[in-house]
Amino acid sequence: MARIVMKFGGTSMAGTERIRRVAGIVRRQQEAGHEVAVVVSAMSGETDRLVNFCREANALYDPAEYDVVVASGEQVTSGLLALTLQSIGAKARSWLGWQLPIRTDDAHAKARIEAIDTDEILASMARGEIAVIPGFQGLTADNRITTLGRGGSDTSAVAVAAALKADRCDIYTDVDGVYTTDPRIVAKARKLKNVTYEEMLELASVGSKVLQTRSVSLAMKEKVRVQVLSSFIDENAPAADTLPGTMIVSDEELEGLDMERQLITGIAADKNDAKVILTAVPDRPGAVSSIFGPLAAANINVDMIIQNVGRADTDTDVTFTVPAADLDRTVAVLEENRETIRYEKLSTDPKVAKISVVGVGMRSHAGVAAMMFKALADRGINIQAISTSEIKVSVLIDSDETELAVRLLHTAYGLDG
Amino acid sequence: MARIVMKFGGTSMAGTERIRRVAGIVRRQQEAGHEVAVVVSAMSGETDRLVNFCREANALYDPAEYDVVVASGEQVTSGLLALTLQSIGAKARSWLGWQLPIRTDDAHAKARIEAIDTDEILASMARGEIAVIPGFQGLTADNRITTLGRGGSDTSAVAVAAALKADRCDIYTDVDGVYTTDPRIVAKARKLKNVTYEEMLELASVGSKVLQTRSVSLAMKEKVRVQVLSSFIDENAPAADTLPGTMIVSDEELEGLDMERQLITGIAADKNDAKVILTAVPDRPGAVSSIFGPLAAANINVDMIIQNVGRADTDTDVTFTVPAADLDRTVAVLEENRETIRYEKLSTDPKVAKISVVGVGMRSHAGVAAMMFKALADRGINIQAISTSEIKVSVLIDSDETELAVRLLHTAYGLDG
Repeated sequence: MARIVMKFGGTSMAGTERIRRVAGIVRRQQEAGHEVAVVVSAMSGETDRLVNFCREANALYDPAEYDVVVASGEQVTSGLLALTLQSIGAKARSWLGWQLPIRTDDAHAKARIEAIDTDEILASMARGEIAVIPGFQGLTADNRITTLGRGGSDTSAVAVAAALKADRCDIYTDVDGVYTTDPRIVAKARKLKNVTYEEMLELASVGSKVLQTRSVSLAMKEKVRVQVLSSFIDENAPAADTLPGTMIVSDEELEGLDMERQLITGIAADKNDAKVILTAVPDRPGAVSSIFGPLAAANINVDMIIQNVGRADTDTDVTFTVPAADLDRTVAVLEENRETIRYEKLSTDPKVAKISVVGVGMRSHAGVAAMMFKALADRGINIQAISTSEIKVSVLIDSDETELAVRLLHTAYGLDG
Repeated sequence: MARIVMKFGGTSMAGTERIRRVAGIVRRQQEAGHEVAVVVSAMSGETDRLVNFCREANALYDPAEYDVVVASGEQVTSGLLALTLQSIGAKARSWLGWQLPIRTDDAHAKARIEAIDTDEILASMARGEIAVIPGFQGLTADNRITTLGRGGSDTSAVAVAAALKADRCDIYTDVDGVYTTDPRIVAKARKLKNVTYEEMLELASVGSKVLQTRSVSLAMKEKVRVQVLSSFIDENAPAADTLPGTMIVSDEELEGLDMERQLITGIAADKNDAKVILTAVPDRPGAVSSIFGPLAAANINVDMIIQNVGRADTDTDVTFTVPAADLDRTVAVLEENRETIRYEKLSTDPKVAKISVVGVGMRSHAGVAAMMFKALADRGINIQAISTSEIKVSVLIDSDETELAVRLLHTAYGLDG
């Protein structure tokens, strides 16, 4: 017997017909002899509907009341899944965020989970009841509802799995695993049997939308075994532990599982950044901090940075990327601080894409970056910026060349299936 | 300064535009110098949508999980009203049923309020915050959500007013008060300035849909001053204590207010009953209890009963009414018990209406019933059954004659405006 946490997203919960499919999948896990807890999202579209109500009510909404409104979507699907499980003969009950409770800090609309009380729910699961838990929601110390931010249900599932000391956390999505790259771009993309936490983290942060970054960090920190699976499986398929999804594992576990692993695990593309160029900034001590200090104070997340020598010996050009959603605010902050930064010209380019190759294998292999630069140069793709981490190399290119770059790198690193 | 509880129904809360009107009405009450708590229903149509989800999920639904689902409708409108009040410069916060808490018994889907904790909310109101409370919902001793049954928000409002020792409970509806009869039937119907709890109770139970019966009983028991008002008033109208609605008061208060009151307060019609006739039941001790015992055990509410002498000296015919919604179950129970009741024939008639004249004035006046019977007989309307209370006379007639009967009684008792 194992203890398993299952998580279903909004597409899987969209309407009572689909919830019935989910109930079947959950029921089979229990019938395979496991203790089961299920974390659910709101019906797809519902959170958007509720957020729109809040915006119409008050453009500058109080996040505490916003949380009261938007948390209701997961409350509804929790009750409905419990009812549906009962209708097929399972014992089930819902446990709302405030009932467990899932304790969070008081950062409404983007709260962080601090602790989950488990005595009651474990006793219920030991009695054979399936625990149904709404994702995305929690409770502050002063008894108010919080939500974890969009997509927070993955994080809820991992946190519940950690608190329950679950053997596995199965995340059911509308894809059936993690691929070497987006299969919509590269037809030859292959599903990965295993991927490490760190690789998943890099993939999630550079545009692979399978799992929320926060949930992967939490899984890594709490050593939760996470499996990504498709919820659109045949209802009569075997229980999930025999289905082919992607298992997210630690480095050590991966070595045991997959000795002959490729150098590179996957290739991701992210079009959500924009480029900012400050021309002819005086090259003096403190110049860089005069730029990035005010941006950090405005809570704008700067990613890639390059500093070129400018036209005069005493000048430098500074190029960096920010989330495209923050571009207007970025420009405003820089213009406000023009006097102290003393740049000659400010220009922006939202038409950029960040292409990343990711893999724990590259730690011990030189030449991964060189292969990337050569492959792109051979096809005349201009690299506008570069950043690297221990298991990732990213380049910034013109967004029109995204698909071409992903395809040729997928082939260059031998990932084509 | 007064402390006022305001309640708005689903029609008033249907969408952010209407919620904005409600916020304006609430804000003006506060600006008139009062402490204000607001009880809200779900958006009209929303509870039906949620109930349908539950039925689709599980025809024999677990009422505890049903409550989790349907309570979400009021949670949404509470948060939205708090947000909207904040947007027009008021301080406001929502207090969900489990947050106050509103403590109920554990009869899920039809719970009864037992107590309401008020320390926190009173402190909040004293700080100038408008308290927004979802109607219809509460919390059991073991920390689960309950709902009070359809239309329960009126009861929530009266219970909150009693707990807060409010000076008044204003119920905003889609009519602007209580009328002598349904204005859609009788154009000359007049709005009543005052009505007693007992009259309101009789009117509510015989088809005047202005207030839920339970809420009126509770108001009478807890001596809560209830006012019925329209929510479709001009946004720039004065605060509610100067608006003409209908005030529900005690007998004693009424005497002070309205010495020259009419004998009869109002006339109500109710088409929700059905008639059942059992022919040739042996006239023996225990005959009647053999009929009504099993019906009571099946939780079927029998209203008017008449027992005629039957065709043989030893037989009797028994006629009674039950809610039309329970007619099929009633027939099933009677057929199951045919052996013990020993009736010859069972027939039913759903095409009946109960017409009632109501008024505290009739206590001290003979002849109210006689006037009613004569007025109906003069127009050839056949009376099928009669029941009376201290302040009400009801007759059962063919439902086709409902409008005619109401109109001619309205004139006969001098109620035409």
